[in-house]
Amino acid sequence: MVKLKFMLLKEYNPYLEYKNGELFLEGVSLKELAKEYGTPLYVYSASYIRDRIRAYKEAFPNALICYAVKANFNPHIVALTKEEGAGADVVSGGELYCALKAGVEPSKIVYAGVGKTLQEITFAVEKDILMFNVESHMELDVLNEVGERLGKKVRVAIRVNPDVDPRTHPYISTGMKKSKFGIDIKQAKEEYRYARSLKNLEVVGIHCHIGSQILDVSPYIEAVEKVVGLYEELIKDGFDIKYIDLGGGLGIKYQPDQANPEPEDLAKAIMPSLRGVQAKLILEPGRSIVGNAGILLTQVQFLKDKGHKHFVIVDAGMNDLIRPAIYSAYHHIVPVVERDVKYIKTDVVGPICETGDFLALDREIPYVERGDYLAVLSAGAYGFAMSSHYNARPKACELLVEKGKVKVIRRRETYEDIFNACFS
Amino acid sequence: MVKLKFMLLKEYNPYLEYKNGELFLEGVSLKELAKEYGTPLYVYSASYIRDRIRAYKEAFPNALICYAVKANFNPHIVALTKEEGAGADVVSGGELYCALKAGVEPSKIVYAGVGKTLQEITFAVEKDILMFNVESHMELDVLNEVGERLGKKVRVAIRVNPDVDPRTHPYISTGMKKSKFGIDIKQAKEEYRYARSLKNLEVVGIHCHIGSQILDVSPYIEAVEKVVGLYEELIKDGFDIKYIDLGGGLGIKYQPDQANPEPEDLAKAIMPSLRGVQAKLILEPGRSIVGNAGILLTQVQFLKDKGHKHFVIVDAGMNDLIRPAIYSAYHHIVPVVERDVKYIKTDVVGPICETGDFLALDREIPYVERGDYLAVLSAGAYGFAMSSHYNARPKACELLVEKGKVKVIRRRETYEDIFNACFS
Ligand SMILES: Cc1ncc(COP(=O)(O)O)c(C=O)c1O
Ligand SMILES: Cc1ncc(COP(=O)(O)O)c(C=O)c1O
Repeated sequence: MVKLKFMLLKEYNPYLEYKNGELFLEGVSLKELAKEYGTPLYVYSASYIRDRIRAYKEAFPNALICYAVKANFNPHIVALTKEEGAGADVVSGGELYCALKAGVEPSKIVYAGVGKTLQEITFAVEKDILMFNVESHMELDVLNEVGERLGKKVRVAIRVNPDVDPRTHPYISTGMKKSKFGIDIKQAKEEYRYARSLKNLEVVGIHCHIGSQILDVSPYIEAVEKVVGLYEELIKDGFDIKYIDLGGGLGIKYQPDQANPEPEDLAKAIMPSLRGVQAKLILEPGRSIVGNAGILLTQVQFLKDKGHKHFVIVDAGMNDLIRPAIYSAYHHIVPVVERDVKYIKTDVVGPICETGDFLALDREIPYVERGDYLAVLSAGAYGFAMSSHYNARPKACELLVEKGKVKVIRRRETYEDIFNACFS
Repeated sequence: MVKLKFMLLKEYNPYLEYKNGELFLEGVSLKELAKEYGTPLYVYSASYIRDRIRAYKEAFPNALICYAVKANFNPHIVALTKEEGAGADVVSGGELYCALKAGVEPSKIVYAGVGKTLQEITFAVEKDILMFNVESHMELDVLNEVGERLGKKVRVAIRVNPDVDPRTHPYISTGMKKSKFGIDIKQAKEEYRYARSLKNLEVVGIHCHIGSQILDVSPYIEAVEKVVGLYEELIKDGFDIKYIDLGGGLGIKYQPDQANPEPEDLAKAIMPSLRGVQAKLILEPGRSIVGNAGILLTQVQFLKDKGHKHFVIVDAGMNDLIRPAIYSAYHHIVPVVERDVKYIKTDVVGPICETGDFLALDREIPYVERGDYLAVLSAGAYGFAMSSHYNARPKACELLVEKGKVKVIRRRETYEDIFNACFS
């Protein structure tokens, strides 16, 4: 039983373990961190992030791995991926700013997004990023205009929509026909020709991203085959396609019984279809780099037994982690210090004034008491990144741990921070 | 037709009108504001907010109206409600800080919330707020301990859960039996006696809040009758119940064909049941004060016609307004400058990297072009308050307009602001 649990934690993150009933991440006691830095508290494992980038690089030795900054845009995290040789996939001027701040070379930055503003495009063209992943016909015109104005050739890929179903949450399925993203693959050739006709654009790539939290690699195979089909047509048509960017989306383990594909599995699945392709491969993993690097520590504030229903009320709310509310997402929750006692069936809820503010519903967790700390697993991706100040709650502190060392990568906000822009 | 549209806007906000085809709020051109301050931009009408507080005060002349800060915690908005004589309903230390900063007297502040931390409780006891709306048995003990430590009597009401169905979105139904909020009304008497036994508590009230965006007042009648029943039992039992706090929840017009109850309708519905009650009435309206005071201005970035589907891509994302994504909420969208042309059926979507990032799906709106401004109505409540930095997007600017005058009540954030706490 203990052995099993031990194995289970390792499946989330090999640096996460119980020692004498107390949870450690990379050799650092999470109880001590919670006490010292307070809760709610995000803690990330640096070694895990390094390992993940390396796993991608081993599986795809010739590819450029562009970490998807959206998953976790703490600049210190981005800097870590950069240290391991990753580039960056950004979706806004703010993410571009972040990637540059983290030291990522512009020549390794790709920029997707359906709503790039003129200001953002100008910023990215000035910085001379690797390429824009273009989402609409109109965007081609605007990029061309900006190129003209700045006297630069703008490198573009067209984001194509291969219309495959990634079998994930509808909100994060992005490659289907009815989605706002990309250009239908069947219309793509026409747009490529149009792009070629614009004199300040240089057509260099094909981009596609089918969705997020994908647990079965077969939709990738489907998408890649369609993309390679387009690639071959374009080559025949005289295009010099230097990059094929397949986006991100590889799923991670959230539920204890969930198996997730590794970069290696993805490589095995798609590399055969890419054999004849000369273009350099780009991948944009986000969740699979940082998701299981991070945990959210929270402290039990109150227990509430309504007879028909039990509640554990903690100090992390939907403002800190909105995934359960918005995607009905499952996050595994474990005690920071084990009590060898019975399990209870409970809702784990936050302090926010909404019924939607929960971390877990009707969940069996080990019995806890007021003051206990809980660790919410798999919180590294789309966790802090989606956090808000709802209920005027200061944003949490973020720590990076590596081999026993602790670094504050975002200090806890104060009340003043929340209202700062109202008075300055 | 034009007349009808004119009437319709007035139903949202009487200070909102087209003049020569251009939208004005309190006499201020929204196009000029968008140009000067950029988009996305929140604009609130001060006169509307004043009127709403007054409407509550007229309908409930003897009540204390505590504005629910959670709906919009901009301190300048809270200060406006305070100017009209309102107190504040807060749900966190941050909101308490905000209310105090806005000048609200502690003697007019009530504090609900299932997860009040020790630090927050201490802060509120030190400030000597009017009362705590207590959500659990355990919270009574903690309040008593803090009272002991600080040498103060802590005034409490117990939040009771009358188990009525407010017929609204499940996430904002808060008064049902299975909800994390409050104490089942049937167990309440026991808890009241327990509270009386704790020597640092003074039992002064009954609190209940059944949910939000309630469009039919009958659930209120049901709840009030149950609360009055409890009140009478408690009085008989020797309690000195000084306050009955009925929470907030009155719904507002989001959809063009939606009728919403006025404070007066609520008064007519519930005052008969309160006739024999000596206690002072407290109400905690949030949405019905600020919801239709605010609009979100956004600029069209791109149009995208996929043949089978049309998209208007704007620069406001789910990070600015998450209600459509999280509650499938409807927000009416109108052009800032009218073009007298055909309607189109379209999705209005934001720049965020998720399919869930939309403002409207399959909506008929007047034809727009790149660069046009759109006004998203009913955005004053739970709009900016729930905004995040997702996709590393700086938070929007907030303006307050009153009779032709414009005040920046929150400047637009910069990229630096987003990452400030990572480097300081
Ligand atoms: C274009 C693009 N690339 C990469 C990603 C990262 O996806 P994931 O975090 O699932 O790997 C996303 C996620 O939304 C995306 O939209
Ligand atoms: C205790 C309490 N009071 C008041 C409100 C305000 O509700 P509304 O904005 O619907 O008026 C809420 C909303 O969640 C609440 O939880």
